[in-house]
Amino acid sequence: LRNGYPEVIYCEGKSNEEIKGIVTNMLERGNNILATRAEEEVYHALEELTDDIEYYERSKIIVIQQEEVAETESEILVVTGGTSDIPVAQEAVITADMLGNTVKRLYDVGVAGIHRLLGNQDKLKEANIIIVVAGMEGALASVVSGLVDKPVIAVPTSVGYGAHFDGVASLLSMLNSCASGLGVVNIDNGFGAGYLASTINRQIEQARNN
Amino acid sequence: LRNGYPEVIYCEGKSNEEIKGIVTNMLERGNNILATRAEEEVYHALEELTDDIEYYERSKIIVIQQEEVAETESEILVVTGGTSDIPVAQEAVITADMLGNTVKRLYDVGVAGIHRLLGNQDKLKEANIIIVVAGMEGALASVVSGLVDKPVIAVPTSVGYGAHFDGVASLLSMLNSCASGLGVVNIDNGFGAGYLASTINRQIEQARNN
Amino acid sequence: LRNGYPEVIYCEGKSNEEIKGIVTNMLERGNNILATRAEEEVYHALEELTDDIEYYERSKIIVIQQEEVAETESEILVVTGGTSDIPVAQEAVITADMLGNTVKRLYDVGVAGIHRLLGNQDKLKEANIIIVVAGMEGALASVVSGLVDKPVIAVPTSVGYGAHFDGVASLLSMLNSCASGLGVVNIDNGFGAGYLASTINRQIEQARNN
Amino acid sequence: LRNGYPEVIYCEGKSNEEIKGIVTNMLERGNNILATRAEEEVYHALEELTDDIEYYERSKIIVIQQEEVAETESEILVVTGGTSDIPVAQEAVITADMLGNTVKRLYDVGVAGIHRLLGNQDKLKEANIIIVVAGMEGALASVVSGLVDKPVIAVPTSVGYGAHFDGVASLLSMLNSCASGLGVVNIDNGFGAGYLASTINRQIEQARNN
Amino acid sequence: LRNGYPEVIYCEGKSNEEIKGIVTNMLERGNNILATRAEEEVYHALEELTDDIEYYERSKIIVIQQEEVAETESEILVVTGGTSDIPVAQEAVITADMLGNTVKRLYDVGVAGIHRLLGNQDKLKEANIIIVVAGMEGALASVVSGLVDKPVIAVPTSVGYGAHFDGVASLLSMLNSCASGLGVVNIDNGFGAGYLASTINRQIEQARNN
Amino acid sequence: LRNGYPEVIYCEGKSNEEIKGIVTNMLERGNNILATRAEEEVYHALEELTDDIEYYERSKIIVIQQEEVAETESEILVVTGGTSDIPVAQEAVITADMLGNTVKRLYDVGVAGIHRLLGNQDKLKEANIIIVVAGMEGALASVVSGLVDKPVIAVPTSVGYGAHFDGVASLLSMLNSCASGLGVVNIDNGFGAGYLASTINRQIEQARNN
Amino acid sequence: LRNGYPEVIYCEGKSNEEIKGIVTNMLERGNNILATRAEEEVYHALEELTDDIEYYERSKIIVIQQEEVAETESEILVVTGGTSDIPVAQEAVITADMLGNTVKRLYDVGVAGIHRLLGNQDKLKEANIIIVVAGMEGALASVVSGLVDKPVIAVPTSVGYGAHFDGVASLLSMLNSCASGLGVVNIDNGFGAGYLASTINRQIEQARNN
Amino acid sequence: LRNGYPEVIYCEGKSNEEIKGIVTNMLERGNNILATRAEEEVYHALEELTDDIEYYERSKIIVIQQEEVAETESEILVVTGGTSDIPVAQEAVITADMLGNTVKRLYDVGVAGIHRLLGNQDKLKEANIIIVVAGMEGALASVVSGLVDKPVIAVPTSVGYGAHFDGVASLLSMLNSCASGLGVVNIDNGFGAGYLASTINRQIEQARNN
Ligand SMILES: Nc1ncnc2c1ncn2[C@@H]1O[C@H](COP(=O)(O)O)[C@@H](O)[C@H]1O
Ligand SMILES: Nc1ncnc2c1ncn2[C@@H]1O[C@H](COP(=O)(O)O)[C@@H](O)[C@H]1O
Ligand SMILES: Nc1ncnc2c1ncn2[C@@H]1O[C@H](COP(=O)(O)O)[C@@H](O)[C@H]1O
Ligand SMILES: Nc1ncnc2c1ncn2[C@@H]1O[C@H](COP(=O)(O)O)[C@@H](O)[C@H]1O
Ligand SMILES: [Mg+2]
Ligand SMILES: [Mg+2]
Ligand SMILES: [Mg+2]
Ligand SMILES: [Mg+2]
Ligand SMILES: [Mg+2]
Ligand SMILES: [Mg+2]
Ligand SMILES: [Mg+2]
Ligand SMILES: [Mg+2]
Repeated sequence: LRNGYPEVIYCEGKSNEEIKGIVTNMLERGNNILATRAEEEVYHALEELTDDIEYYERSKIIVIQQEEVAETESEILVVTGGTSDIPVAQEAVITADMLGNTVKRLYDVGVAGIHRLLGNQDKLKEANIIIVVAGMEGALASVVSGLVDKPVIAVPTSVGYGAHFDGVASLLSMLNSCASGLGVVNIDNGFGAGYLASTINRQIEQARNN
Repeated sequence: LRNGYPEVIYCEGKSNEEIKGIVTNMLERGNNILATRAEEEVYHALEELTDDIEYYERSKIIVIQQEEVAETESEILVVTGGTSDIPVAQEAVITADMLGNTVKRLYDVGVAGIHRLLGNQDKLKEANIIIVVAGMEGALASVVSGLVDKPVIAVPTSVGYGAHFDGVASLLSMLNSCASGLGVVNIDNGFGAGYLASTINRQIEQARNN
Repeated sequence: LRNGYPEVIYCEGKSNEEIKGIVTNMLERGNNILATRAEEEVYHALEELTDDIEYYERSKIIVIQQEEVAETESEILVVTGGTSDIPVAQEAVITADMLGNTVKRLYDVGVAGIHRLLGNQDKLKEANIIIVVAGMEGALASVVSGLVDKPVIAVPTSVGYGAHFDGVASLLSMLNSCASGLGVVNIDNGFGAGYLASTINRQIEQARNN
Repeated sequence: LRNGYPEVIYCEGKSNEEIKGIVTNMLERGNNILATRAEEEVYHALEELTDDIEYYERSKIIVIQQEEVAETESEILVVTGGTSDIPVAQEAVITADMLGNTVKRLYDVGVAGIHRLLGNQDKLKEANIIIVVAGMEGALASVVSGLVDKPVIAVPTSVGYGAHFDGVASLLSMLNSCASGLGVVNIDNGFGAGYLASTINRQIEQARNN
Repeated sequence: LRNGYPEVIYCEGKSNEEIKGIVTNMLERGNNILATRAEEEVYHALEELTDDIEYYERSKIIVIQQEEVAETESEILVVTGGTSDIPVAQEAVITADMLGNTVKRLYDVGVAGIHRLLGNQDKLKEANIIIVVAGMEGALASVVSGLVDKPVIAVPTSVGYGAHFDGVASLLSMLNSCASGLGVVNIDNGFGAGYLASTINRQIEQARNN
Repeated sequence: LRNGYPEVIYCEGKSNEEIKGIVTNMLERGNNILATRAEEEVYHALEELTDDIEYYERSKIIVIQQEEVAETESEILVVTGGTSDIPVAQEAVITADMLGNTVKRLYDVGVAGIHRLLGNQDKLKEANIIIVVAGMEGALASVVSGLVDKPVIAVPTSVGYGAHFDGVASLLSMLNSCASGLGVVNIDNGFGAGYLASTINRQIEQARNN
Repeated sequence: LRNGYPEVIYCEGKSNEEIKGIVTNMLERGNNILATRAEEEVYHALEELTDDIEYYERSKIIVIQQEEVAETESEILVVTGGTSDIPVAQEAVITADMLGNTVKRLYDVGVAGIHRLLGNQDKLKEANIIIVVAGMEGALASVVSGLVDKPVIAVPTSVGYGAHFDGVASLLSMLNSCASGLGVVNIDNGFGAGYLASTINRQIEQARNN
Repeated sequence: LRNGYPEVIYCEGKSNEEIKGIVTNMLERGNNILATRAEEEVYHALEELTDDIEYYERSKIIVIQQEEVAETESEILVVTGGTSDIPVAQEAVITADMLGNTVKRLYDVGVAGIHRLLGNQDKLKEANIIIVVAGMEGALASVVSGLVDKPVIAVPTSVGYGAHFDGVASLLSMLNSCASGLGVVNIDNGFGAGYLASTINRQIEQARNN
C-alpha cells in the first residue's frame, strides 16, 4: 500500500526469503502489515520474526498488527451469495478492517432464495458502502444494487465449474449489471474491494470531520 | 418441425426464391407455417403466395395460419427483464402459440427493480412452464427459478454492449445459475424456447387427457 | 434445493466442518439429503453422522436416505454417448431418482455407431423426458432430439481433449443444435439436468392426478 | 435510475415510439431526464415533446432538464488518456452533472507523454473521486491510482484496433491494475462511472451535512 | 494453386486492378482459372478480358475455362446439412470439378431428420471421398464418418447465430468428432476441401493407372 | 474403430476395470487392439490378460497384436518440427502401422532451420500421403504443403507455452494455411491423423489392385 | 510521435475538426506530419490547409512533408507474404521513410511457394533490420527469422477469414515462432513496426557516426 | 540458436536422455550452452557430463560456459515492474549475457509507485536497448517507452490472477501500447527478448566497428 497505512505484500511469486526480507524492513518501521495470497509455509517463515501475527488459512492472509487502528463511523457491509464465497469475503473484511473501517457481514444470501436477502434489508440500509462477493452467475450484485442507492463494489469469485471459466461468468455478469452504479474488481480480489471501499470511506469520514 | 404441427422455416441464409419454393410446397399440404429470422423482403415475397399471412417486424417472424389451433389447459408464461428483450420474447410467444399452447406474458420485470417481479408472483404461480428472456447480466432467470419449483427455460439475449459480447455474458450467467433446474437455449433463440416449452406442455396435456 | 424435497448440498469449496454442520441440521429435519461434488474425504466425514449413507465414487455423490421416495408413472430416460460420460449421467440418474422419478438408462449409443442408437428407438419412445449426456462433439443430443418430439435436456461433458476446451465444444454444439427443443445445462451438470427433468415430470404427474 | 433523481433511459434496442411513450410519462412527473445511447433520430423524435432538450452528438446523450440541480462541495474529476476517449468521458461528465455533482475535466494526459499528467497533479489532489477513461492499453488508470489515495473509477474504452478486441485489452488491463483501489465498469460505460461516482459523492455530502 | 492445373486467385483484399493484372497473365499461359471470394464487381471487371467466364453468385466464384478437363473414375461426394450450406458446398464442387474430378452431390440431409441421410446410404457407398459441409452443430460430419470407412473432409460453415460465433461451434464440433478419420478445413473453406479431396483422388487415379 | 481392422480403445475417462472388460471381449474375437491415451497403470492391468502386448510410454499407446498385418505399397510419411513433437508423431505412426500401412519418418525438420527440410525433399517426393506434426507456430505444415501436391494432414501439438494456449496457436495456424489442401485434426490427435491417412491409403491400394 | 521527428496523428475516433485543429498547430511548428488510419474525407479536410500533402488510399496514410529528411546508411527491408498484405506493409514503409530511414521492399514471397523467398536471400542479407508482414498463418516470419541472424519485426495482418479471427491466428503464430528473435507488434500495425525499426536504426547510425 | 554463438536447448517436452544426448554433442563442438525451461532434475543429469555448469533455479536456466564471451560497448537494460517478474527478467539477462552483451538491471519500478521509475531516468538514458518485463496490467512498458526514444522490447509475464488469464492481460496491454515502438515477445519469454535485444546490439556494434 504505497499510499495507505498498513503496508501490504502480495506473496504470490515471491520466495519465502524475499518475503522475510520485506517484512523485516516493515517491522522496523513499526507499521501494521497485511500479507495476501500467503501459503501456510509463508506464515511459518514469518512466525520466526514476530509474535504479533495471525494467519487466516482459507483466505490465505497474514496480519501483523503493531499499532492500534481507529474505527470509522460509516460502515462497510460485506455480503456473500454462498458459503463458498466466504474466503474471498474475508479478504475484503480483513483488508478494510486493517485500514481502520467499521465492517459488517451478511453471508449466504444468494438469489436462489431471495427472501433471505429481502429479510435483511435493514442491514443494507445501515451500510454506507456495500461489497457484494458472489460466484456462480453473480446475480446477487445486481439485486443488491437495485435495492439501494449507494456505492456497491462487486467481487466476482471463481466459485463455479464448467462454463464458469474460473470466475469469468461472474465477472461478465457483474460488468453487465442492469443496476446502475456497480464498480467491479478482479476475480477473487477481496483485497481490492476492501481497499477501494476504504478509500471511499476515508472521503466520507474526512467530510464528516470537517 | 419434422415432428410437430406447423411447419417451420429458418430463413437466414436462404434466398427469397428458395423460401418461396419451400412455402409453396407447405401451402399445398394445408399446414400452418412459421418462418423465423425473416427480413421484410421475405414477407413481401410470400405475400404473393397467400393472404393468410402476418409479419411481426421486430421479431422477424412470418405466420401463415391455414388451420385452427387448439389451446392447452396448462400455461406457458413468458417473462422479460427489459423492453429491449421483447422481440426475442415474442418469437417464443408466437412459436408456442402456433404450436397450440396457452401463453401469457409478464414483461419488463428485471432485477434492478425487483419489487415489480415480486408484485407479480401470482402470475408465476399460475404458470406451468416459465420462459425467462433476459439480456445484460441475465440475473432474472436465477431469481425467477429461485421463486418457483417449475421448469424454467432461460433465453439469453444479445441486449447489452462492451463485455456483453453479443449475449455471451447473459448465456454464461444462465448456464451458471445458482438456482436449480434451468434449461438454457442459444442466444436470442426465442423459437427454441417456445418449442421446448411446447414439448413439455404436450406431455402435460397427454397426462391430463389419459 | 430450496423448493424441492430432498435437501441438496454443493460440496465444492466447503470445508468438511462446514458440510458436517449443514448435514447435522438437515438430519434433524428428517429429510433425505443429496451431496454433490463430494470428495471421498467428505464421505468419510459424514459417515460419522449416519449409517444411511451411500457414496457414488465416480460421480462424487453422497446419498443419505431417511424417508421412502414415491415413483412417478412417467419416465425419464438418461442416454450417454460413451462410457466416459457415465459418471455425469449417474449424477442425473441419482438426482432424478432421489426426487421421486422413474428413471431408465441407455448408455454408450454415440453417433460414431449410429445403429446402436437406432436399434433402441423403443426406449426413446417409451420415455416422457430424455436427458442426453455427451462429450466430444456432442452430436448425440441433436440426433436424439431429431428422432423424438419430447423435451430433451442436453448435458455437455468435459470428455475430450485439445480443442474440446474442457467441454466447451460439446456445449456449443448443443446450444446450436439444428433439432428444435433442446434445453442445455452447464458442462458436467448432471445434477441440473436431473433436477430440471424432475420439475417437468412433476407437472406431468400433477396433470395426471387431477 | 430507479433510485436516483433524474430518470434515465437506455435507448439501444428500443423503438422511437417506445422511447417517446416513456419520456411522455416522465415529463408529466416533472423530472429531469437523461437518455443514453440515443441515435440522432431519437433526439428528433423527442424534440416534438419538449423544448428543454439538448443533444450531445458524439456521446449520444439527450438531456431534458426541467428542474434546477444542486451542486456538491466535493469534486469528481474525469480524466482521459486521449482525445478519442472524450465521447465516453462526456457521458460520465453529463451523468454526474445531472445527478447534482461538481465535475471537473482533465483530458488527453495519456502515459505515452507522462509529463503532461505529472504537471497536473494539483487537479488530482483537489478531486475527491477520480474517473479515468482510457482505451489502448488503459495504463493511465494504474498510473493515476498510484499517484493518489482516493477512489478511482476506471472506464475502459473501445478505442484501439487489432488485438484490442473492442475494449477487452483496456478492460483486462484495468481489472489487473497493480495499483490498489480501482473499481472498473463495462467498456465505454461512461454512464455507469458517472453514476457510481455520484453515489459515492452523495455519501460524502451526507456526512458533511450531518 | 502453385502445384495444380487451373490457376487460382483468392480475391479478398485485392483491388480489381490487381486481379485484372493477374488474370491477364494467366490467360496468356492458356490455363483454366478459378477465382474465389470474388464480389460481383470483380466478375464485371474480368468480363472485359474474356468471354469464357462464368460467375457463381452465391458462392462468389468465377470460372474461366480455356481447356477441357479430364474426369476421374473415383468419385467425390459433397454432402450438406441444410440448404444454407449450399454456397460453401458449391465452392468445393466447382473446385474439385475444375481440378478434373467426378463430383456428386447429396444436399440437405442434416441430422435433425436423420432418415433422409440413412435413405441415401448407397450414395455414401459409391463415393471414394466424402466432403461434409455443415453449420449449426456440425453433427452431420460425425454421423457420416461413422457410417463409412473412407476419407471424410469436414467443412464447418458460418451458418448459425448467437453462440455459434460465426462457425466456431461447427469447427470445434468437427475437430472433436467421436468418429475417426475426419480431416477438417477452415470455416466456409469449400475451396480447401475440394482441393484436398482432389489431391487424394489424384493419388487414387495414379495407382489405378499404374 | 467401429469400421476398421484393429479395434481401438480411447482410455481417458475409463476405469481400469472398464478397460479390462472391453479388452477381454476383444481378445476373444482374435483382433489386434490399439489402446490410446493409456496411463502406465492401464498397461500393467492389461499385462495380466495377454503377453502379446507392448507399451509406448511417451505416446501412451498400448498395442496388442494377435494377427499379422499386411503392408501397403503406397507410403505415409510422418514429419515433425521438433523432438518434443515425437510422442504425438509416434501415435500417428503406430496407428497407421497397425492399420496395415507402410510408414516412414522424417523428424526434427522445423522451419527455424529450413535447410534441413529442403535437404530431405526426396522423402517428401516418395511419399503418397504426408502427416505433419508441429507445435509452436505450426508453420511446417504450410511449408511442406507448399512443396508437394499431395494430401497433407496437419496435427497441431500442444508443444509451446504462454500465448500458445495448449495448442491453439498451432491449430489456428494450420487451419489458416496459405498452402492449399491441408486437412487438420484435433490438437495432439496423432491417432486421428494416422487413421485418416490410412483411409486414404486404403482407397489408393484398392484402385491399384483393381 | 512525442519523441521523434515527424509528428504523428492517429485519426481513428477523432472528428475532422479535431484533426484540422491538431494539424494547424503542427504546420506552424514547421514539422513533417504523418496521419495514419485516415479516411479519405480527412484527406480532403486537410487539403484545405496545405498543398504539400499526399494520400495513400489503401494504407489510409496522409503525408505532409515540409522539410527534407536524411537517409540512413543501414537498410530496413519490408517483406510481405501476399499482395493483400501490401497496404499494411506500406504503412511501415512510409513511416520508416518519414523517420529518415533507407527502406527496401520484397513483396509476395509467402511460404506456399518458398522458392521465391529462397531466390531472394541476397536481399535478406543486405538488410540490417527486417519487417515481415503476413496474414493467414503468418509462417513467413518464422522462415525469414530462421534464415537470418538480425532483428526481425513481425506484423500480423487481418488478411484471412473464418478461424483467422481478424488477425489473431497470424498474431499467435508470430508470438510462438520457433525461430528466435522476433519482436511482434499489433495486428495491422505497420506504423508501429516502421517506428520500432527506426529506433533500432537510429542506434545503429549513432554508433556508426561516433 | 541456429544462427548465434552459444547453442540453445529448449528443455520442455524433452526427456533427460534426449537432453543429455544433445548436450554431449554440443560439448564436443566446444561451444557454450544455454538450456532454458530446465527442471532441476535436468541440471542433475547434466552435472554428470561437465563441471562448468551453473543452474539458475527460479529462472530454470542452465549455463555451460566453455569459452570466454566478449562484451559490447552498447548496453541492454532489463527493467521489471515487481519482484515476481525477476525470474523471467533473469532469463533475458542471462541470454543476452551469454550472447556477449553488456547487460544492466533496474528491478521493481512498477507504475503503482511511478516515482521510483522517474528517479532512475539516468539508467534509461544510458541504455541503448531496453527490455521491460511486467505482469499484472503491464503498464510499465508503455510508460518506459514514452520516456525514451529507443527500441523497447516488452515481455509480458504470467504474474497475476483471475482475469489475468496467465499473462494474456499483460500481453494485450503491451500489444496495444499508446507509446510507439514496442516489440512484444511471448508471455514469460525472457529468452526471446534477450535474443532479440542481442541481434539489435550486434547491428549496433558492427556499425561502430566499421
Ligand atoms: N490479493 C491482492 N490482489 C491484488 N493486488 C494485491 C493483493 N494484495 C496486495 N496487492 C497489491 O500489491 C501491492 C504489493 O505488491 P508487492 O510490492 O509485489 O508485494 C500492494 O500495494 C497492493 O497494491
Ligand atoms: N429461430 C430459429 N432458431 C433455431 N432453429 C430454428 C429457428 N427457426 C427454425 N429452426 C429450426 O430449423 C428447422 C427448419 O430448418 P430448415 O428445414 O433448414 O428450414 C426447424 O424445424 C427448426 O428445427
Ligand atoms: N452439481 C451441482 N451443479 C450445480 N448446482 C448444484 C449442484 N449441486 C447442487 N447444486 C445447487 O446448489 C445448491 C446448494 O448450494 P449450497 O447451498 O452452496 O450447498 C442446490 O440447491 C442446488 O441448487
Ligand atoms: N525459453 C524459450 N522460449 C522460446 N524459445 C526458446 C526458449 N529457449 C530456447 N528457445 C528456442 O528453441 C530453440 C531450440 O529448440 P530445440 O532444438 O527444440 O531445443 C532455440 O534455438 C531457440 O530458438
Ligand atoms: Mg443501486
Ligand atoms: Mg426453481
Ligand atoms: Mg425433437
Ligand atoms: Mg491509489
Ligand atoms: Mg469413418
Ligand atoms: Mg500442396
Ligand atoms: Mg533469426
Ligand atoms: Mg519510445
